[in-house]
Amino acid sequence: MESSSLKIAIAGLGTVGLGVIEIINKHSETLHKRSGKKFDIVAICAKSKNKKRSFNLKNFEWEDDLKNLSSRKDIDVVIELIGGSDGPALDLVKGALNAKKHVITANKALISKHGNELIKIAEEKKVSLKFEASVAGGIPCIKTLSESLSGNKINKIMGVLNGTCNYILTEMENKNESYENVFKEAQNLGYVETDPKLDIGGIDSAQKLAILSSIAFGTKIYYNSKNTNGIENINLEDIEFAKSMGYRIKLLSVSESTSKGIFQQTAPSLIPEKHIISKLDGGTNLVSIIGDSVEEIILQGPGAGKGPTASAVISDLVDIALENIRPVLGQHIDQLELPIRDLRKESSCYYLRFNLADEPGSLGKVAKILGSFKISIDRMRQIKHKGENAPIIMVTHISDIDNIKNALIDINKLDVCLSHPTMIRIENL
Amino acid sequence: MESSSLKIAIAGLGTVGLGVIEIINKHSETLHKRSGKKFDIVAICAKSKNKKRSFNLKNFEWEDDLKNLSSRKDIDVVIELIGGSDGPALDLVKGALNAKKHVITANKALISKHGNELIKIAEEKKVSLKFEASVAGGIPCIKTLSESLSGNKINKIMGVLNGTCNYILTEMENKNESYENVFKEAQNLGYVETDPKLDIGGIDSAQKLAILSSIAFGTKIYYNSKNTNGIENINLEDIEFAKSMGYRIKLLSVSESTSKGIFQQTAPSLIPEKHIISKLDGGTNLVSIIGDSVEEIILQGPGAGKGPTASAVISDLVDIALENIRPVLGQHIDQLELPIRDLRKESSCYYLRFNLADEPGSLGKVAKILGSFKISIDRMRQIKHKGENAPIIMVTHISDIDNIKNALIDINKLDVCLSHPTMIRIENL
Repeated sequence: MESSSLKIAIAGLGTVGLGVIEIINKHSETLHKRSGKKFDIVAICAKSKNKKRSFNLKNFEWEDDLKNLSSRKDIDVVIELIGGSDGPALDLVKGALNAKKHVITANKALISKHGNELIKIAEEKKVSLKFEASVAGGIPCIKTLSESLSGNKINKIMGVLNGTCNYILTEMENKNESYENVFKEAQNLGYVETDPKLDIGGIDSAQKLAILSSIAFGTKIYYNSKNTNGIENINLEDIEFAKSMGYRIKLLSVSESTSKGIFQQTAPSLIPEKHIISKLDGGTNLVSIIGDSVEEIILQGPGAGKGPTASAVISDLVDIALENIRPVLGQHIDQLELPIRDLRKESSCYYLRFNLADEPGSLGKVAKILGSFKISIDRMRQIKHKGENAPIIMVTHISDIDNIKNALIDINKLDVCLSHPTMIRIENL
Repeated sequence: MESSSLKIAIAGLGTVGLGVIEIINKHSETLHKRSGKKFDIVAICAKSKNKKRSFNLKNFEWEDDLKNLSSRKDIDVVIELIGGSDGPALDLVKGALNAKKHVITANKALISKHGNELIKIAEEKKVSLKFEASVAGGIPCIKTLSESLSGNKINKIMGVLNGTCNYILTEMENKNESYENVFKEAQNLGYVETDPKLDIGGIDSAQKLAILSSIAFGTKIYYNSKNTNGIENINLEDIEFAKSMGYRIKLLSVSESTSKGIFQQTAPSLIPEKHIISKLDGGTNLVSIIGDSVEEIILQGPGAGKGPTASAVISDLVDIALENIRPVLGQHIDQLELPIRDLRKESSCYYLRFNLADEPGSLGKVAKILGSFKISIDRMRQIKHKGENAPIIMVTHISDIDNIKNALIDINKLDVCLSHPTMIRIENL
């Protein structure tokens, strides 16, 4: 990278790829001034060359062969925007790093699964692997954690990291619409990934949390689907009931340093309505970082979309052009261990919803089981009857998560229990 | 800086200096891992050696002579925490840069006044001058603007940049207390600078805005007290009345790129109560950045205090240790011009409060003058009488600022006008 231009290859020409090309064209002069290098897109490639696109392909050299793209001598940086945790994206990134190219990616699935291995290759080859765009779109949460807060011991990070889920929850509340209807609407608007489970199942959020958590706590990247729940089982009654008790439901990703290890969870959570996380509407993302010196820093902004995601990619490009090549997780990968995971035997208050048969003794049977697991009830409410169901909502006092889970298993076996009970953690804020 | 340690001198041992020493001691191992260098405090100095301090001076070498400190061969970085726009702080920073030391400062007064000159010296000497801590304490707004958003054309930045003012305004509202009482309370709590005008006069905020504005819009740093108003004239009636109309009053710093140039203003402003800036309580700071690609990014956190400010200083130290030496304003100083300033002939809606004699025709006289300046009224209200006064509050339709100012000059001359009218801009959000 001796020359005064930065030679860029872009693989994947969806929305974000287009956004990156647009910024490089529109702001070429400023980028040159800011980075000292001319940004030069020397090759592009994507699945289909013949797809209709809003820019003229002929301005760029098309490269058919991904393998070739990763090893071409005239390329300094490869931007991977193909997507997917494996397959061509993985091959490209690995190939490019091994060929001593810098790599930028927006791919949280790839980084949360193969990040440790890929970072190791990058460090060995003395090139950068950067992925600001992989978490929370335009919000600079990776740079903030790894650079701006480098003097802090991070105690906790919390995030609303999936705009689609937050959009669905907000719309359900605002329009008094069922989950099913709002989900369909979101799909029609193109807000939901091809595999909806990635969004609404909490997987996308959990992958992003794994990346943030690693930087925050100085551990290797660890993604595991175990502590991950989505919003599929949240219904309108839950939202209304939470509201009546002064809470809103958010799909919250939390990672916390505890005495037993790192607790890392993505799940619907009840957030006090006065808390800033509770007020987050629509597709916006939020990241809260609590450090021992800085106290609480909150970053908020668009977590997806062409412009914001491309903005993050460009920030990585400028860093590379300026040779700001520092350990991407804040420390060299060999200095990091896998986190000691604490699946939180730790206790919390829980919101429980039961759908019970409307007959004498139903509630008694449930209460008996809860009592036998030492779960005591802070508040309880019965919602208006709908046909034969009698939805009962409870808020527990602080209870052990294992006790709650075991009690729900037993309650679910009762004849009077008409559907699987819903459990939502109340975040202690 | 060939060696594996970063040799640091700290000048000024107030709260922030102490915070910096504490972090370096507490997290020496992590800082070493993150930066590749051992942070070594080789000399300290302050006004008085004999002052009682919460740490043992003997662990550090005391340097009496600031001049000597700036030129000592065994120092890589000088951290200036003395304060003040001129005098010893300026001499130290200039001397250190000229002696090819990197410099970190938390001093917004110094940077907003002498930043352009100092940055030029730093660039000539090929060293870093960094000042993340000078704006909004622990919030990484300088790094976000100059690095994370480097692919954006910034359209507007807004900030609540002085915690003391926001604390006073919040307390007035929450406790229904007069400005005078809350101000005294804030002083007793040590929240107000020795010269209160710096805080409540809006100067501190305007200095910070000048720094952010320069980075955002790619101009030289330009601070001018002209477009700066403080909160001294805000009274409880203004707060109550704003609230009744769906607004809260905040000391807002705005910098905006307009067709005529850069509009840069710090003044009390009416913010719609649903807007996030309106919801900001107490001493917290907030920075909103609107870019052409990223849309709106909001950063929120503690804008002052030992830990947060020291955290920002350490982030600069780690950057220097890692030799992330890039133009601190985003571009080289010689590429930047002074901003073309637009003192906003542009129009806005305004909140006006008149204190009129309670006699027939008072309002008519005021209305006549407003009419003659083509100022039309959207809403008007008369507050309950207090003795002989009849406070009248108006919200104008969109009006030219010069017309408003000239009308108020004429109204102020009326016999029935008992005190100088209050004018607050309504921020268009």
